[in-house]
Amino acid sequence: MADADHRAGAGTTSAGTGASLVPAGAPPAYHRLLERLGQVSDLRAAASLLNWDEEVNMPPGGAAARAEQKATISRLAHQAFTAPEVGEWLDELSGWEAQLDPESDAAALLRVTRRDYERSRRVPPDLVAELARASSQGYQAWMEARSQRRFAPFAPALARLVELRRQLADALGYPEEPYDALLEGHEPGMRTRQVRELFARLKEGLVPLVQAIAERQDRVRDDFLHGDFPDADQWELTLEALRAIGFDFQRGRQDRSVHPFTAGLAAGDVRLTTRIFPDVFGPALFSSLHEGGHGLYEQGFPAAWHRTPLAEAASSAVHESQSRLWENVIGRSREFWTFFFPKVQARFPRQLEGVDAEAMYRAVNRSRPSLIRVEADEVTYNLHIMLRFELELALLGGDLPVDELPGAWREKTLAYLGLEPADDVEGVLQDIHWSWGGFGYFPSYALGNLIALQLWEAALRDEPALPERIARGDLRGVLEWMREHVHRNGARWEPLELVRRVTGAELSEEPFLRYVRRKYGELYGL
Amino acid sequence: MADADHRAGAGTTSAGTGASLVPAGAPPAYHRLLERLGQVSDLRAAASLLNWDEEVNMPPGGAAARAEQKATISRLAHQAFTAPEVGEWLDELSGWEAQLDPESDAAALLRVTRRDYERSRRVPPDLVAELARASSQGYQAWMEARSQRRFAPFAPALARLVELRRQLADALGYPEEPYDALLEGHEPGMRTRQVRELFARLKEGLVPLVQAIAERQDRVRDDFLHGDFPDADQWELTLEALRAIGFDFQRGRQDRSVHPFTAGLAAGDVRLTTRIFPDVFGPALFSSLHEGGHGLYEQGFPAAWHRTPLAEAASSAVHESQSRLWENVIGRSREFWTFFFPKVQARFPRQLEGVDAEAMYRAVNRSRPSLIRVEADEVTYNLHIMLRFELELALLGGDLPVDELPGAWREKTLAYLGLEPADDVEGVLQDIHWSWGGFGYFPSYALGNLIALQLWEAALRDEPALPERIARGDLRGVLEWMREHVHRNGARWEPLELVRRVTGAELSEEPFLRYVRRKYGELYGL
Repeated sequence: MADADHRAGAGTTSAGTGASLVPAGAPPAYHRLLERLGQVSDLRAAASLLNWDEEVNMPPGGAAARAEQKATISRLAHQAFTAPEVGEWLDELSGWEAQLDPESDAAALLRVTRRDYERSRRVPPDLVAELARASSQGYQAWMEARSQRRFAPFAPALARLVELRRQLADALGYPEEPYDALLEGHEPGMRTRQVRELFARLKEGLVPLVQAIAERQDRVRDDFLHGDFPDADQWELTLEALRAIGFDFQRGRQDRSVHPFTAGLAAGDVRLTTRIFPDVFGPALFSSLHEGGHGLYEQGFPAAWHRTPLAEAASSAVHESQSRLWENVIGRSREFWTFFFPKVQARFPRQLEGVDAEAMYRAVNRSRPSLIRVEADEVTYNLHIMLRFELELALLGGDLPVDELPGAWREKTLAYLGLEPADDVEGVLQDIHWSWGGFGYFPSYALGNLIALQLWEAALRDEPALPERIARGDLRGVLEWMREHVHRNGARWEPLELVRRVTGAELSEEPFLRYVRRKYGELYGL
Repeated sequence: MADADHRAGAGTTSAGTGASLVPAGAPPAYHRLLERLGQVSDLRAAASLLNWDEEVNMPPGGAAARAEQKATISRLAHQAFTAPEVGEWLDELSGWEAQLDPESDAAALLRVTRRDYERSRRVPPDLVAELARASSQGYQAWMEARSQRRFAPFAPALARLVELRRQLADALGYPEEPYDALLEGHEPGMRTRQVRELFARLKEGLVPLVQAIAERQDRVRDDFLHGDFPDADQWELTLEALRAIGFDFQRGRQDRSVHPFTAGLAAGDVRLTTRIFPDVFGPALFSSLHEGGHGLYEQGFPAAWHRTPLAEAASSAVHESQSRLWENVIGRSREFWTFFFPKVQARFPRQLEGVDAEAMYRAVNRSRPSLIRVEADEVTYNLHIMLRFELELALLGGDLPVDELPGAWREKTLAYLGLEPADDVEGVLQDIHWSWGGFGYFPSYALGNLIALQLWEAALRDEPALPERIARGDLRGVLEWMREHVHRNGARWEPLELVRRVTGAELSEEPFLRYVRRKYGELYGL
């Protein structure tokens, strides 16, 4: 059974044995630290379950109590992690740490813990409280603005959030520019300068490609994906796809929620959600593959690192690299549809009459500039991200007054995608992230795409037969490679270091550009 | 809509407004105490969700991590409640408390908090740890004994648990006898002596009744309840029944689990579970009505008491009074079946061909001595409890050596029920409670039955038309009475005080005996 193989794989990594996490003769402070980290991990898992349950199961009447429960548990987790004694243990351990092999698990654990502890201690509690208030007000204002379909009601709250995030950046400190401080929260060790340079080259490659595709829209049809695709059949197909990619249902489950997400309560308990639209085939399946990619990563953290910060993703971008790999690089590949199309057609023989695997492959890869990020295809998606990144930089740098944001949004949308939003809901109000001041997160989405392709090129170098195996329905090779090179390393290395070690090269936009040029060049006859 | 009415009813009690819980001029220590109690309540709700999810949703791979998460959250809740500063606040508040109206919400809150705090502080942490270890070992030994179908492998662990529970009773202190200390944990303010006296009179009334029924088994047939009753139809009927009794699905839900239970995360979020056997009609429905009764109680706590120990049941027996009321007094009444039978027959026309409401009423009330407590009918059930209570007293009092327990069990089973267990799984090993040393809990089950009937007599005195309304499918009157007299009082009064205030009399076995004599006298022509 594929499931059994994958399950065994998760426990048999060479890294992350109990012995290497707790070396013989570890000082008492190290044991105390581990105990505390375990407690923090338990609290975060409880918070994660409270959140998952809220989206999946909670009756409406539970909302008020749930908000209080989440706030209490999160506060206790924060307090437990940032308590002064944690700093004292870290201080006590610095001599011992210096003698450890830097490649050892214990050294990695202390490095990651120290980094997170120091960052969390730099933020004054008053600013934390002020940010929480402003986020809540921002969300209210954003909702109101959306209901009016215009930006103005959101502007004052957003201005306050920009101001507070600047203060946060100052409190955290930064090596080169304020945005670094916010980026660091998602991509440890990465600099804004590096993102800017990557994105500039990426944009240079993408804009002409997007324009060329836009001019040849008649080359790919996807009309047969719209019709009557009953919920129950789509649901079964999402489960089939998850089993095919190796998601272990003994250590996870799938449910439904309005916005799909993944909650990793532990490597043995990973929850995915999806959303089904019965009038279109595609969104539910690709959403499940996306969350399934996140879920495989979470299921792949070494058991010996359980309840430590090493049993986490290296970064948001690395997490996203896994979801985008399975959703797009695998899930939208010709090889995937070679083996998966018959399963889909068996469930929808009438709806897909006259359609074959090749037609399906083309349909699910239809590319077209669009206004809404979450509906964007893999070519245009990164342009949505760059636009947001550039605007965040301008806002935080003070180069763009908040009032001018909608205009700047329109300009860039026209320049990158050739489109104009009809109103602000189709434009600057479309994402929830800014409503709570979540600047610094968007880059991870595009970086994830770049990492996915750089990893994929490395995997193909190691095992050129992977595509053939996929076409036969055997996806184990892909998972095994990711387990070995990505999952089992958890948060041991910072994202750029992980990419360097695993692929032998610095993070680059080139693999991604090579991929989209080849794939979409063929699809659109460019 | 009935649901809307019930929902409104829950919030419009005269007791428990915010103003009465926090009187003008309340000292700072009182506010600090409320905040802490809120935090403890949040942690307990999280623990409750972790537990509910484990039974309902968790994939098998989550078990190990879940045990750690539950232990951490429970420990933090205990630490937060028993912290020295809580005692200091209570001390500081004693002068202010003395001036409060003893009937006020604030006085009730302080009384309940002080009681629980003092009790929890009396147990030495070493004993807590030792009990946790012994409980875990006891459960293992009990499982092993069950697999061997003999008591002996469980005996040493049980002896250790008896010894530790005696130590616990000594640590807690007791007014009259050691068992009082354990009983107090479930039935605050009640004495073993009172239970002994109630049960002696109850037994005197029940044993001849049970014998008379056993001799006339041919009077009631229930063969048509066994057959093909598809899961989906039974599930829908449990939901119909829950809607009929007024369970509010905006503030709760029903799921499935191996052992049905109720988890009240908040008055606005109450989770029931049930279990369906597709070859028999009855167990699932009555299980849902039972848990639904617990659920209605939890949904009826005043909103203003949210996150305080007042928004809890008065005791385990009072909780059980609500579940048994809806399961048996209402759910097994002729009036209930007058309106509910057509709904059942509509789903199972073939299976219930030739059956009418009266036949169904008789079938679901078939009484018969049996060996297994959880399968017992409402007449014989209390005898199972008394047997356990008597054995617990003898064990803890040192009058019965653990090795002689199986023999004593057999003797009493023969004397009370006229039956002999084939082996210890059918006898002394059948309940999980003793496996973790849970002495002092069984009495609550029978006390709940007595309270249910005493409340029901009082409700009928107030509103003699309640049965007619039930026969028409209008169960709101019952719920409204319970809301007003029981639910809205939460844990304000100790159980005996609640019974006295609500019914105007001391708790007595007489209403219950009147009920079973009349009902079963008629059913069995006695």
